[in-house]
Amino acid sequence: MKTLNIGIIGAGRIGNVHAESITYHIPQARVARVSDPVGDSARKLAERFGVPAYSTDYMDIINDPEIDAVLVCTPTPTHADISIAAMKAGKHVFCEKPVHTSLERIRDVAKTAEETGRKLQIGFNRRFDHNHRHVQQLAQDGTLGSIEIIKITSRDPEPPSPEYAASSGGLYIDMMIHDFDMAMFLAGCDVTEVYAMGTSLVDPRIGQAGDVDTAIVTLTFENGALGVIDNSRRAAYGYDQRVEVFGSLGMAADENDGDSTVRVSTAGGVVSDKPQFFFLERYMQSFTDEMKCFIQAITEDSEVPVGIHAGLMSVVLAKAAKKSLDEHRPVKISEIM
Amino acid sequence: MKTLNIGIIGAGRIGNVHAESITYHIPQARVARVSDPVGDSARKLAERFGVPAYSTDYMDIINDPEIDAVLVCTPTPTHADISIAAMKAGKHVFCEKPVHTSLERIRDVAKTAEETGRKLQIGFNRRFDHNHRHVQQLAQDGTLGSIEIIKITSRDPEPPSPEYAASSGGLYIDMMIHDFDMAMFLAGCDVTEVYAMGTSLVDPRIGQAGDVDTAIVTLTFENGALGVIDNSRRAAYGYDQRVEVFGSLGMAADENDGDSTVRVSTAGGVVSDKPQFFFLERYMQSFTDEMKCFIQAITEDSEVPVGIHAGLMSVVLAKAAKKSLDEHRPVKISEIM
Amino acid sequence: MKTLNIGIIGAGRIGNVHAESITYHIPQARVARVSDPVGDSARKLAERFGVPAYSTDYMDIINDPEIDAVLVCTPTPTHADISIAAMKAGKHVFCEKPVHTSLERIRDVAKTAEETGRKLQIGFNRRFDHNHRHVQQLAQDGTLGSIEIIKITSRDPEPPSPEYAASSGGLYIDMMIHDFDMAMFLAGCDVTEVYAMGTSLVDPRIGQAGDVDTAIVTLTFENGALGVIDNSRRAAYGYDQRVEVFGSLGMAADENDGDSTVRVSTAGGVVSDKPQFFFLERYMQSFTDEMKCFIQAITEDSEVPVGIHAGLMSVVLAKAAKKSLDEHRPVKISEIM
Amino acid sequence: MKTLNIGIIGAGRIGNVHAESITYHIPQARVARVSDPVGDSARKLAERFGVPAYSTDYMDIINDPEIDAVLVCTPTPTHADISIAAMKAGKHVFCEKPVHTSLERIRDVAKTAEETGRKLQIGFNRRFDHNHRHVQQLAQDGTLGSIEIIKITSRDPEPPSPEYAASSGGLYIDMMIHDFDMAMFLAGCDVTEVYAMGTSLVDPRIGQAGDVDTAIVTLTFENGALGVIDNSRRAAYGYDQRVEVFGSLGMAADENDGDSTVRVSTAGGVVSDKPQFFFLERYMQSFTDEMKCFIQAITEDSEVPVGIHAGLMSVVLAKAAKKSLDEHRPVKISEIM
Repeated sequence: MKTLNIGIIGAGRIGNVHAESITYHIPQARVARVSDPVGDSARKLAERFGVPAYSTDYMDIINDPEIDAVLVCTPTPTHADISIAAMKAGKHVFCEKPVHTSLERIRDVAKTAEETGRKLQIGFNRRFDHNHRHVQQLAQDGTLGSIEIIKITSRDPEPPSPEYAASSGGLYIDMMIHDFDMAMFLAGCDVTEVYAMGTSLVDPRIGQAGDVDTAIVTLTFENGALGVIDNSRRAAYGYDQRVEVFGSLGMAADENDGDSTVRVSTAGGVVSDKPQFFFLERYMQSFTDEMKCFIQAITEDSEVPVGIHAGLMSVVLAKAAKKSLDEHRPVKISEIM
Repeated sequence: MKTLNIGIIGAGRIGNVHAESITYHIPQARVARVSDPVGDSARKLAERFGVPAYSTDYMDIINDPEIDAVLVCTPTPTHADISIAAMKAGKHVFCEKPVHTSLERIRDVAKTAEETGRKLQIGFNRRFDHNHRHVQQLAQDGTLGSIEIIKITSRDPEPPSPEYAASSGGLYIDMMIHDFDMAMFLAGCDVTEVYAMGTSLVDPRIGQAGDVDTAIVTLTFENGALGVIDNSRRAAYGYDQRVEVFGSLGMAADENDGDSTVRVSTAGGVVSDKPQFFFLERYMQSFTDEMKCFIQAITEDSEVPVGIHAGLMSVVLAKAAKKSLDEHRPVKISEIM
Repeated sequence: MKTLNIGIIGAGRIGNVHAESITYHIPQARVARVSDPVGDSARKLAERFGVPAYSTDYMDIINDPEIDAVLVCTPTPTHADISIAAMKAGKHVFCEKPVHTSLERIRDVAKTAEETGRKLQIGFNRRFDHNHRHVQQLAQDGTLGSIEIIKITSRDPEPPSPEYAASSGGLYIDMMIHDFDMAMFLAGCDVTEVYAMGTSLVDPRIGQAGDVDTAIVTLTFENGALGVIDNSRRAAYGYDQRVEVFGSLGMAADENDGDSTVRVSTAGGVVSDKPQFFFLERYMQSFTDEMKCFIQAITEDSEVPVGIHAGLMSVVLAKAAKKSLDEHRPVKISEIM
Repeated sequence: MKTLNIGIIGAGRIGNVHAESITYHIPQARVARVSDPVGDSARKLAERFGVPAYSTDYMDIINDPEIDAVLVCTPTPTHADISIAAMKAGKHVFCEKPVHTSLERIRDVAKTAEETGRKLQIGFNRRFDHNHRHVQQLAQDGTLGSIEIIKITSRDPEPPSPEYAASSGGLYIDMMIHDFDMAMFLAGCDVTEVYAMGTSLVDPRIGQAGDVDTAIVTLTFENGALGVIDNSRRAAYGYDQRVEVFGSLGMAADENDGDSTVRVSTAGGVVSDKPQFFFLERYMQSFTDEMKCFIQAITEDSEVPVGIHAGLMSVVLAKAAKKSLDEHRPVKISEIM
């Protein structure tokens, strides 16, 4: 079987993550080209993983007939343009989230995928996490009965700078977007209504910048189930990532991963490991697995596990949450779409 | 020191619970009288715990000058009348929750307590639970820093009959009232706004009776923290009672109590005990401890741990939740009070 | 049904424990007499639990025709004499462990029980502990298959004084006797051979007094299974009481009980409760349950759950362990019996 | 810095494991040659990991002046000869355990290492396991105070064939050798005496072949601490790998790793993941980390973390255990050495 040639557009942190997964864990593919407009980022990635060609212009990748698929790892505003150009050039596309902050542009991407027949996968890596995926399987295989309540806790270890918060589009689209997608993944259906609470308790400068750093959002799902997500930009004990699904036959819930299973018992108490602090430590396996699935969808010509519908709905929910917060009322998804 | 003479009005399940606590665990008090209008309930309680006098008329207790304190364990509509009569007769009062469904009557009770100077404790036993109380202590002693998010899960093992649901006043006042009180107990302050979701997923007849059986309610606290409560009338795995407080310095969360700590590992999996199923099994220690505190407040002339403010605010929140559900919008507490 | 009249001989700590169980939790029985030669111990117990008669002479109990059963809660050297006298006077007997340090005298007690037909139960309360009993049930009901390995950890929170250690008969009979009984309880059969290690690491004065404070003893069971017990006289984190049974189909193991299920997550780690520190806190429920079973064996004329065989074998194992330590070799039980 | 050229001698399972670690996780080294006398094992490994040269004769590796270090992954009887030859040819050596079943030959290997000054690391990978290593750190950094009791549980998921058991040298050297090394690693010192119990409960054919499949071995350490290891060739619930260190200030214990942290609560119970079943799944990270340390010891000219003393002592303990079982008595290590 032919080895797939992958082009990576954007050689930042996430570009390097994908390069590592492909190079070390996916023998069916290899990184054949990498581009990044900034400094020597592309060269560094190329040297680190033995990539034969690199440049500052992503069109070098799109115009290369040997490239089978493209990973779009650039800043959000460019995701849609690059994805569309790549698909039109016949490449399969893996696009990081969010696809775009404009629903219009996301729909353009969807349309191009449909017209070109290219594979298009969106980078919701948490769906591939060993813990969350296990909960989802139990929710979908009937073990839990009909789903009634979904709860997601997602708290970052450390807050971003106020500057980042100001430019990020806000917590709902920058951070909670993962949880919106996770909620629909766990429920197995879309959301119909959102009510958002948000406040700035972590860093007042985030509030001054017009964003929130602590938030609770409730969800109504198409199947009648209820859901709730809580986010904080700072958890003193580490990166807190937990989900719970409650149904007519029972409940499945996961706990955080620690570095070890050791418990230390002294006069001071019984102490276990804190949750892993860094998202790449916590979620590295999920990044590798989403990439394996993308490659497999291409080689086996099967459906991608996370399509453009997820890319669209997660942004819709983020917009609905922002509108709910601004207008202090529940917002129907139909108001946004 | 003189042994306190306690009169129990209402010899149903909860009356028996308190009689057991006093008889076996509180040497400073004894049950001297019991009354119940129904059949021979009073006689049975008297025989079971060696109570010297019983009758069908609660005025026998209120008129007995030897009685120091009265436990009001009757159906909800009579709580206020009996409490007021007892305090006016000079008795200290322990009143089960809810005090009344009318805020007006609750205020009457409060006023009487103030005028007579009698002790008045409300039966929010869960505040005395070993798990929840430990979380509250960590929230209040500064271990968790400033409080930012409070989460409460409360799910009954089995749904009530649709008839009960119809006559209970609804889930928010019948079931979630405990959680409203717990939320304010954990936060150390009142709630300012409520948004309620509710639906009938457990038993359609509950929905037909105009009630909900599955609910999520979000809270805004006076101190700026956010909160969320989820309730279900049925959990297949038992009585699910968990709280979580998240603050600037960390998080405290409890787990359910099981019958043992045993884990069984076989080819089928690693199996632990389910949560205790019956509320009296789960919360018996808390019932005893609330009674100890009530007796202590009398003998030491100190403040009761759960006063009428808690009795009032819990009903206010239940009413706000119902209004929120009906009007599909967040409701400010000031709208209710 | 007639209420059983119980006489308690010995009004020390364990006598009070049993009085509490009977008074508050066993309506089928009442403490009718108590005796203790020391000071006003008997009077204090009588007042505390409303016992109508007390004295310094235990013969007042044995000679009272109204007494149905006797609890022997005196120092070890008197257990056998009092038990024999009581049974000869027609009383059922509950005798604390060890029955005696002489196998001859234990056999005398056994013989008397057989001749008089009286119930005779030995005070191995841990068999009634909610955790250990659950493990035993899983071992005996076939869930674990055929038993292959049994492990018991038993560590006291604080060491005794060197004086106590010197006079106690040594760790194997004073402390590990509980674990020897537990091992046979879990295995469902006797032990055939013992190999003992022991050393003094906790307090050198214990070693100077000729005793050990840290010990590991291995066991061979009649059914071919292997076992190991480890003891320490001091665990910095509390009273450590755990058992594990491993069989052909799986393993059951218990954990210590804490005061709550709360976990606190901060920058310093994830902290859970320490094991309960005091043996009465940890094992109070088991003391009550062993007494319930004793009373039930009398009222229903059924077999006692812990008979004299257990009283004998536990001492045999303690003696075998001591001999093994002294002679630095494995010792067969047949060498002792 | 120059990339180290590694030669792998023996292209079986463990040879492939090391090749994977070096190829994907250790940029400072590369596999330059591989040899295996059997069929096309060497070719397959070479193709799988892009190794430029392979052959059936390990002397091709030893004679290659470009090779810096050799991994000895052959059957046990050849470990010593190959290691000695490689060191004499100037190569650093990583040798799988056991080094040899003859103490004489192990000493020859040690002598060669000393004379040639080559690095020599023994393959006790479990020392690098995230769980066990954390316990060891707490034991060695003083958190636990002075060490008093060490307990190790090590149970395979499935028994070997009786033929394998017969040819393996027996459980003590084939399986428990890892635990002997772990015990000394945790204690931070050697063992002075061993007492071994062993029986065949899992598969009678293993007993007929002269081996045991269920074993408990107690240890006395140089520092006065006591220890115990239990082994079974079959655990119905998976690969059971746990250690516990108890000291004057507390205890550290680890639990097995599962595939996820999910707990499922249904009417049937609360179910968690079983221990990971396959040793490569459970210990892959430790294999990679031991190899990283070996490479680092070469590049930084520092001491290897697991030297020939560990290789010698583990075999000494295995021999002492076998002698103890055969002679049914405790055996001093000095009797073996």
